[in-house]
Amino acid sequence: MTWVYEHYRDATAIGFHTTQRLHHEVSPFQTIDVHQTIGNGKLLTLDGMVMVTELDEFVYHEALVHAPMCLHPDPKRILVVGGGDGGTVREVLRHDSVESIELCEIDERVTLVCEEHFPTVASEIRNPKVRCRFEDAIAFVATCESEYDVIMVDGSEPVGPAEGLFERAFFESLKRALRPGGVLSAQAESPLYAPEVVSKTFGGMREVFQHVHAYTATCPTYPGGLWTFCLASEDRALEQMRPQALAGLPTRYFNPQSLRASFMLPTFVAELTR
Amino acid sequence: MTWVYEHYRDATAIGFHTTQRLHHEVSPFQTIDVHQTIGNGKLLTLDGMVMVTELDEFVYHEALVHAPMCLHPDPKRILVVGGGDGGTVREVLRHDSVESIELCEIDERVTLVCEEHFPTVASEIRNPKVRCRFEDAIAFVATCESEYDVIMVDGSEPVGPAEGLFERAFFESLKRALRPGGVLSAQAESPLYAPEVVSKTFGGMREVFQHVHAYTATCPTYPGGLWTFCLASEDRALEQMRPQALAGLPTRYFNPQSLRASFMLPTFVAELTR
Repeated sequence: MTWVYEHYRDATAIGFHTTQRLHHEVSPFQTIDVHQTIGNGKLLTLDGMVMVTELDEFVYHEALVHAPMCLHPDPKRILVVGGGDGGTVREVLRHDSVESIELCEIDERVTLVCEEHFPTVASEIRNPKVRCRFEDAIAFVATCESEYDVIMVDGSEPVGPAEGLFERAFFESLKRALRPGGVLSAQAESPLYAPEVVSKTFGGMREVFQHVHAYTATCPTYPGGLWTFCLASEDRALEQMRPQALAGLPTRYFNPQSLRASFMLPTFVAELTR
Repeated sequence: MTWVYEHYRDATAIGFHTTQRLHHEVSPFQTIDVHQTIGNGKLLTLDGMVMVTELDEFVYHEALVHAPMCLHPDPKRILVVGGGDGGTVREVLRHDSVESIELCEIDERVTLVCEEHFPTVASEIRNPKVRCRFEDAIAFVATCESEYDVIMVDGSEPVGPAEGLFERAFFESLKRALRPGGVLSAQAESPLYAPEVVSKTFGGMREVFQHVHAYTATCPTYPGGLWTFCLASEDRALEQMRPQALAGLPTRYFNPQSLRASFMLPTFVAELTR
């Protein structure tokens, strides 16, 4: 038994008591590890960064997915950027309106490893509504025009392969890829430990989209817990959100009230994302 | 330079990159350490458990204090149980109605160490409205009858000296110590990593008080981040909350909206605290 740590920005660390390393490989893009932990179920890390634990992955995936899916009144065509573990796809498919999902993940090995080790996360990867494209999302999105009702940017932090996902040029591509009335969500890092990333992300989004809203969720195994998400649209304002679209879904984090609450920001987060 | 970790319930850990240990002592009650960290300012641990970092202590202290202070319409006489670092007292004194605060902390050494190393946290410990009692709070509260408008239970987790603070017998004492219309708040641990403590605390509180409400705040340096708090009263319901009492206060976490949002619980926390 040993402890596995993610050391974040040389300041803070999060650790997991593990009993076994179940998988280790160096893919063409990153190092992929799976550990069995004592208190958090299985743990997936990419280049040593915590991506998924079975205990708390529901928080991140529900937050990234259900906010945009409740803002769009009839989301049919969906794009997931990154998200190779499959958790985002699983949550998207809880909405009956969905007709097709494209998953654009740069590293096919992540998806294959998750199908083997995280069956409850990758459970819907082979659903006939899902098409997996294992390619660079930045290049792919640049070819799309008015294709999607909802896009979710489910990337890792802005080092390594995910760096370009936080650039304004990519936000412009995303805007072109959305159909009229389309909605975008993106994970936007820790307001406490990466305030300059949060601030730059929202600054860039506001230059590109008419309506940009910050919301938070507490992802317990991400550094600092409190995590920022961005909801953006050219033509849908937050007032159009329909939290009642959550009714009947088997969610464990979001309910109509807690979805609304996620947009009522702590003062220091509001100041950072203004 | 070295990393200091709190290992929590043998499952998860939180770590801090430190440059120097500024203080170490074994008091009659516990081991007290102060470290200089790289990303979190100074760090106070008691028996190795993270109590305060300068970076994020505002979250915990604002959450514990301003919820009950906004529920009571005119809080004059205040009791703080534990809270030897002084952060709770500092937040209480932001409310002009306050006439007196008793701080009942078992370990005087905690307060003296914080006055030396955490001047921005312990800043109001010598305020003339504050009286420090360095004694066992459980014995002290048992002697009080109809004394306080607001009581805050600012204890560490239920191991060591703070264990009795989570027992039903203590909740009965707290109820007797409150004046009519009085309000109580208490930190109630991690819903993810200590669900049985959360559940037992709320069960006990509901047996003793008429109105019991759970709320959460994300305390980034506590394990899992998401933290549960309990607000209890014999005769004040949540509908009587006056979030506008925060207006003009120099808070960084709570504002009228985010105070309301803290009671709109994620589904899994609502189920645990029901």
